[in-house]
Amino acid sequence: MSQTTAKRPLTTLQKNTNKSVIVRLKNDVEYKGKIDNVDSYMNLIMSDAEELNDGKIVEKYGKIILRGNNVLFIKLENEL
Amino acid sequence: MSQTTAKRPLTTLQKNTNKSVIVRLKNDVEYKGKIDNVDSYMNLIMSDAEELNDGKIVEKYGKIILRGNNVLFIKLENEL
Amino acid sequence: MSQTTAKRPLTTLQKNTNKSVIVRLKNDVEYKGKIDNVDSYMNLIMSDAEELNDGKIVEKYGKIILRGNNVLFIKLENEL
Amino acid sequence: MSQTTAKRPLTTLQKNTNKSVIVRLKNDVEYKGKIDNVDSYMNLIMSDAEELNDGKIVEKYGKIILRGNNVLFIKLENEL
Amino acid sequence: MSQTTAKRPLTTLQKNTNKSVIVRLKNDVEYKGKIDNVDSYMNLIMSDAEELNDGKIVEKYGKIILRGNNVLFIKLENEL
Amino acid sequence: MSQTTAKRPLTTLQKNTNKSVIVRLKNDVEYKGKIDNVDSYMNLIMSDAEELNDGKIVEKYGKIILRGNNVLFIKLENEL
Amino acid sequence: MSQTTAKRPLTTLQKNTNKSVIVRLKNDVEYKGKIDNVDSYMNLIMSDAEELNDGKIVEKYGKIILRGNNVLFIKLENEL
Repeated sequence: MSQTTAKRPLTTLQKNTNKSVIVRLKNDVEYKGKIDNVDSYMNLIMSDAEELNDGKIVEKYGKIILRGNNVLFIKLENEL
Repeated sequence: MSQTTAKRPLTTLQKNTNKSVIVRLKNDVEYKGKIDNVDSYMNLIMSDAEELNDGKIVEKYGKIILRGNNVLFIKLENEL
Repeated sequence: MSQTTAKRPLTTLQKNTNKSVIVRLKNDVEYKGKIDNVDSYMNLIMSDAEELNDGKIVEKYGKIILRGNNVLFIKLENEL
Repeated sequence: MSQTTAKRPLTTLQKNTNKSVIVRLKNDVEYKGKIDNVDSYMNLIMSDAEELNDGKIVEKYGKIILRGNNVLFIKLENEL
Repeated sequence: MSQTTAKRPLTTLQKNTNKSVIVRLKNDVEYKGKIDNVDSYMNLIMSDAEELNDGKIVEKYGKIILRGNNVLFIKLENEL
Repeated sequence: MSQTTAKRPLTTLQKNTNKSVIVRLKNDVEYKGKIDNVDSYMNLIMSDAEELNDGKIVEKYGKIILRGNNVLFIKLENEL
Repeated sequence: MSQTTAKRPLTTLQKNTNKSVIVRLKNDVEYKGKIDNVDSYMNLIMSDAEELNDGKIVEKYGKIILRGNNVLFIKLENEL
């Protein structure tokens, strides 16, 4: 990948709209679901969201809005 | 959903005015109620607010103003 | 309530000047009193302030200035 | 008190220059003294400052500059 | 190295696109992988990311987006 | 002291250049030394700096640059 | 040293490019090395970096980029 085609992190995140991701928060809980939308603070709308603890589903939420400042990292779909 | 119809997280939140949500704070306490209003910091006015601990109602508040920086995530009504 | 009459959280707070509120801080201590004034950081002047621990009065302060970044939520008067 | 005469929290604080206050920090230690000056971050210069722990004087400092982001609340003089 | 050729930290980081790094987060977990891109908040896209605990691989992620405010430090490739 | 001669906290701090202070950090460790310079974040250059733990010298540093966001308060020289 | 020749903390830090420093982070771990560069957030590039725990070398890193918000203080070379 050349430097000219590389995307900024937030741009890449926006390109993953409608794709599946796993979001790990600072409290180590993970949320798996589809990105509906994202803004520059990494505030995320996820649909079909599942809360994972140690990789096991502990709750299903449907649509949630995650506040971006809690995010540790986001695994992109093609890597799940 | 096409990218053009997708809403930014804060816009989506504002579209949920008068709808029921559950707000989970960073301290893991949850508040269930109706969104009266919200601003760009995710400061929220909720009415008919109930404080939930492990899913059980521990207190009823009526109208509260939640400071946005405490928010972990918000579950939207149609998912409750 | 229609969306046009809904007030932003900080505007609502300012409309509660001279009314009684309970402010819960992030450290779980609560302060009950009358809002004298408030600014956009949620810095609050309260008069006739009482410190509550588990709902019991532990101290009376008269007039205090609370720094807004400590606020978890504020219960409005008509709900007390 | 009408809304037009109410003062913003930081303005009120500046009007208390030369008056005695007790400042409680987030670490629950309190500093009693006279406000020499204050800025918009709630950075405070206090003179004749005494450190209080559970209401008891544990140290005397003379003049100190307190960084505002540590402040939990400030009790104003006419209430001490 | 003269001062004129020295690079600012974020510029240096951007020059390491496509190179291998180890990112240590504030929670002491490390992520080893290739920098795909980075922005001014130190938000990072890493590919072929491995999570390391005490230097041992505990999980492989492929492509992740790390939120910059969690970063403690980043070891650059030519030093690995 | 009249309000017109009162100095803002950061101005007062800058006027204490070359004077001895004790800086207490949020982790309760104290640094005693001479202020060489200070900026608006309360970043401080101190010379002849001594680290104090419970008032006892535990280390001597010479010249250090303290990051301002760690500061709890600063005791000014004429009060030491 | 007269006030006119005193340097602001960040300027002083930039003047120490290529000199040896010890950086203590908020987690009390120290990094000893040469400053390659620094920006206004105190983000630092260090080369020949050694991680010190209680003053003992526990790891050698070569070149690292330290995120400035983790810095407690920096000891300048002529004081080591």
